[in-house]
Amino acid sequence: MLRTHQCGLLTKADVGTKVTLNGWVQRRRDLGGVLFIDLRDRSGIVQVVFNPDFSGEALAIADRARNEYVLAVSGTVVERSADTKNPNLETGEIEVRITEIEIMNAAKTPPFFIEDGVEVDEQVRLKYRYLDLRRPEMQRSLYLRSKAAKVFRDYLDENGFVEVETPILTKSSPEGARDYLVPSRVHPGEFFALPQSPQLYKQLLMVGGVERYYQIARCFRDEDLRADRQPEFTQVDIETSFLSRDQLLDMMEELCVKLFKATLDMDIPRPFQRLTYADAMGKYGSDKPDLRFGLELRDVSDIVATSGVKVFASVVAGGGIVKALNAKGCASWSRKELDDLAPFASRYGGKGLAWIQIKDGEWKGPIVKFFNEAEIAALTERLDAQEGDVLIFSADKAKVVNDVLGNLRLKVGKDLGLINENEYKFAWVIDFPLLGYDEEAKRYVAEHHPFTRPHEEDLHYFDTDPGKIRAQAYDLVLNGYEVGGGSMRIYKREVQEKMFDALGFSPELAREKFGYLLDAFEYGTPPHGGMAYGFDRLVMLIAKQSNLREVIAFPKTASATCLMMSAPSPVDEEQLEELSIKLAVKEPAAK
Amino acid sequence: MLRTHQCGLLTKADVGTKVTLNGWVQRRRDLGGVLFIDLRDRSGIVQVVFNPDFSGEALAIADRARNEYVLAVSGTVVERSADTKNPNLETGEIEVRITEIEIMNAAKTPPFFIEDGVEVDEQVRLKYRYLDLRRPEMQRSLYLRSKAAKVFRDYLDENGFVEVETPILTKSSPEGARDYLVPSRVHPGEFFALPQSPQLYKQLLMVGGVERYYQIARCFRDEDLRADRQPEFTQVDIETSFLSRDQLLDMMEELCVKLFKATLDMDIPRPFQRLTYADAMGKYGSDKPDLRFGLELRDVSDIVATSGVKVFASVVAGGGIVKALNAKGCASWSRKELDDLAPFASRYGGKGLAWIQIKDGEWKGPIVKFFNEAEIAALTERLDAQEGDVLIFSADKAKVVNDVLGNLRLKVGKDLGLINENEYKFAWVIDFPLLGYDEEAKRYVAEHHPFTRPHEEDLHYFDTDPGKIRAQAYDLVLNGYEVGGGSMRIYKREVQEKMFDALGFSPELAREKFGYLLDAFEYGTPPHGGMAYGFDRLVMLIAKQSNLREVIAFPKTASATCLMMSAPSPVDEEQLEELSIKLAVKEPAAK
Repeated sequence: MLRTHQCGLLTKADVGTKVTLNGWVQRRRDLGGVLFIDLRDRSGIVQVVFNPDFSGEALAIADRARNEYVLAVSGTVVERSADTKNPNLETGEIEVRITEIEIMNAAKTPPFFIEDGVEVDEQVRLKYRYLDLRRPEMQRSLYLRSKAAKVFRDYLDENGFVEVETPILTKSSPEGARDYLVPSRVHPGEFFALPQSPQLYKQLLMVGGVERYYQIARCFRDEDLRADRQPEFTQVDIETSFLSRDQLLDMMEELCVKLFKATLDMDIPRPFQRLTYADAMGKYGSDKPDLRFGLELRDVSDIVATSGVKVFASVVAGGGIVKALNAKGCASWSRKELDDLAPFASRYGGKGLAWIQIKDGEWKGPIVKFFNEAEIAALTERLDAQEGDVLIFSADKAKVVNDVLGNLRLKVGKDLGLINENEYKFAWVIDFPLLGYDEEAKRYVAEHHPFTRPHEEDLHYFDTDPGKIRAQAYDLVLNGYEVGGGSMRIYKREVQEKMFDALGFSPELAREKFGYLLDAFEYGTPPHGGMAYGFDRLVMLIAKQSNLREVIAFPKTASATCLMMSAPSPVDEEQLEELSIKLAVKEPAAK
Repeated sequence: MLRTHQCGLLTKADVGTKVTLNGWVQRRRDLGGVLFIDLRDRSGIVQVVFNPDFSGEALAIADRARNEYVLAVSGTVVERSADTKNPNLETGEIEVRITEIEIMNAAKTPPFFIEDGVEVDEQVRLKYRYLDLRRPEMQRSLYLRSKAAKVFRDYLDENGFVEVETPILTKSSPEGARDYLVPSRVHPGEFFALPQSPQLYKQLLMVGGVERYYQIARCFRDEDLRADRQPEFTQVDIETSFLSRDQLLDMMEELCVKLFKATLDMDIPRPFQRLTYADAMGKYGSDKPDLRFGLELRDVSDIVATSGVKVFASVVAGGGIVKALNAKGCASWSRKELDDLAPFASRYGGKGLAWIQIKDGEWKGPIVKFFNEAEIAALTERLDAQEGDVLIFSADKAKVVNDVLGNLRLKVGKDLGLINENEYKFAWVIDFPLLGYDEEAKRYVAEHHPFTRPHEEDLHYFDTDPGKIRAQAYDLVLNGYEVGGGSMRIYKREVQEKMFDALGFSPELAREKFGYLLDAFEYGTPPHGGMAYGFDRLVMLIAKQSNLREVIAFPKTASATCLMMSAPSPVDEEQLEELSIKLAVKEPAAK
């Protein structure tokens, strides 16, 4: 009894047609001698009816069916009478009168109902993922992900990109602390590593003249997991030669526009806002600002440096900064809400937050008395302070101030309902610093990676103030998430040498770390650059989910475990012997 | 100096146009004051000309360029004079007169010329893969592979398949001797395994109601490598629910037809030949016969069983078989060629080959005298024996006879030039045996895997003669290669139990081996089946290559090594400690 039609696609146009359907029992209702079954397949649900008038035999067989049984049924599509039409069901205008049935398979009672919005512990969903996937919202997630991948591929294909598969069994990187390792059986004592990204391969492909490469690539990072990380994740990996940064970013914007048109039928305006790293940190305290609302931060260091607020003055004198956020209209906050600011700040490393309420025409709060009139006037202007506002100040090292106020901005924005959940606001954050100073190692480290190209006009800082060099690096930011990032790469030997020098790598050390890549770079490397999209996260945002696991068919838990398969798991002693390794576990692994 | 045009795409239509090109120096010719450079990019080559009349400055700079330097040049496209046109070059009718040049990058002299058909050791090519990839034939290979993937995806997408990514970090399988293992840092003493295929996941997706799944999936097998194996390989993995075998195979045929149309503009006739495993073994001694030529084998056991050839008679009496190949027109083979048959046979486990030459109207050879007239008449008819032929006999267990004569058939076919190298001949081999008897383990083992569905009408053999059960399994064969394979899967509990019983698995053992899958199967499993294409091999055949490495960007060698990156490699002690493993290498690893 092979399927002729899909359940969810039957309409009034099919009335009178003899159809065979295959699917699962969503629910059954026995109305005393007449049996109604909602039959579900991938396309949706349709009501099928068993009645002794159509076939007593079919009714008798159907009577044995329970939820999630697999049925094949044949019958005729009929229009429902007006009073039995179901406007909540796509196919609610019709039903199918069944004359023949086969129970293709039985089913135990599932641990949760196969329907949307089901209340069930995520652990149970993950253990029974094969049932969870039957739920329409998971089906939609999988379909969305598949479609998004196709949009990426089609666009890149049309633009002359070649899809190249790069190895999964690769070499452990010099900073490979987070590499997954794979012992080699053929070469005892040696290991492959799973790639954290195809970065080196894609640069080698550019040396290899591929010019435009892409791959939807699996990547691996063995780190402690947070809600938005998975030990294996997928990125759309892209690299190009002979393009300027702006040519590349334009193309990537166009791609995003197509993606949102195809998946959400949404028109994303272009060009995307571009803001420098310095501006992003200044205004939003974040390099991945949520631009769906304003509430910009303001630096008030100059105003408060000489004020009577001792802590402000001393922070500024010590090289720190003071910034403020005007929480518009929040003067009505209770004492408790104001008191909660301090613990909020400490969560992000801050020592506290000062506040001023503007209420009943007055500035109120513990620090108000330390400001003179000129300072209050300056703050009023800088912060656009008005009746009903609360001004919140953070004074510390710039990093702390930005973390605290950047996160406070998000919280206030959310609390005040300033965020339109249906809006998607892309932006490029550009001109990241090339180098950051590592206080512990007492040297500069690459903020992106050691092959990131500096801005031409900042090259002279290599000799004077490397921390000032801006990189030709860019992140693609969407609603407060980093959904992509990349850079133009160094391709000139003399720039690479300056870079290694700034990082404190001797030529020998550089060779030891990046030997074959430096070799490759000697043979005519074209100017190149690229980026990678975080595919899981992008699909998650399109699906309006807040957890990556909702858009991954078989995800791992926060402790990097597959609950369905119970992986990882112990293996046989012989397998280890074969691989020339043994366990060095101090205590038995706690399960 | 950003590219406006691509080198290889310039034509006479561009004459008069000012263009900027970016690319590599393919070669330079200095004609005393005038410099010609063949500039190469991904699209091809064009001649660019430097002349003091166009720009003395450009000429001076260009003079420093050597092979594989990266140049940006601007100038005007002109038609070449009739006598300087180059018909061997796509762009041979034009050249570009350069007025401006930038050397974007220098290059050391590469270890081999960047051109097709270059004679260089493969080891060198692999070490310098980034240069090897610049050669037009490698660029074509990568492009072909990318295009083939797109054809697969587009077809499957159009037919309602959902692309689902399944995990790479998965569970070691019960027969995981060939699994690559990955130690878990978070769970000391436990391991992930890299998948040999997504088989279990795709069946779980069918339980999950996905109905049509595909993935171009990376798979891993840690085995000793042959010319046509790689430790990681790519398969187009497909699974469907609610389709009959023939519906599925029809769809898969249509896919192959589209693939060859899109890549080679070749019309592959449909339907593909279907031959049973029994027929394939009988006629060709192989389950992946090359059908581009005939030379079928014939079983002559019945004729020779009672003949005077003792060895034939005793083999048949002992349950073996005697088969013969008629090497048409090979009576002219020299004594040496006939003598070489014995070592050829022993390479495939045979003890020798008997032969009869039909020459000058006579049957000649050591065994002729043992046949009577009736036997000779019967052989003549069975083997279509004619003047000029050589009849070659193998007598042994069926497996040995088929191996020997199957391979001899290929050799003779090749030697006689019976193979049209431009032909692509697909076939399905169907009805594989479900079970094979393992003499060592003294039990039946699954020929495909334990979830392969037996033919309905053979189910009764479970109780009487399990070896006779035919599986609903199929291989897709192309020109003597297996390029795909799959099966319909067991979805009924009672059949699965019979299968486990036949394999000698107690319910407890079955549960231990396949626990979560058996659990899943309890919850309403739809009838399902699928297949996987060996993507690397298929692309290799389309590219008319004989080595998988020619169609993989960064392949491993036969000893599973990456020569470019020197992977695998030793890792730091601390990395191992972090993973709770230590080395158990008896001797230092030989490099």
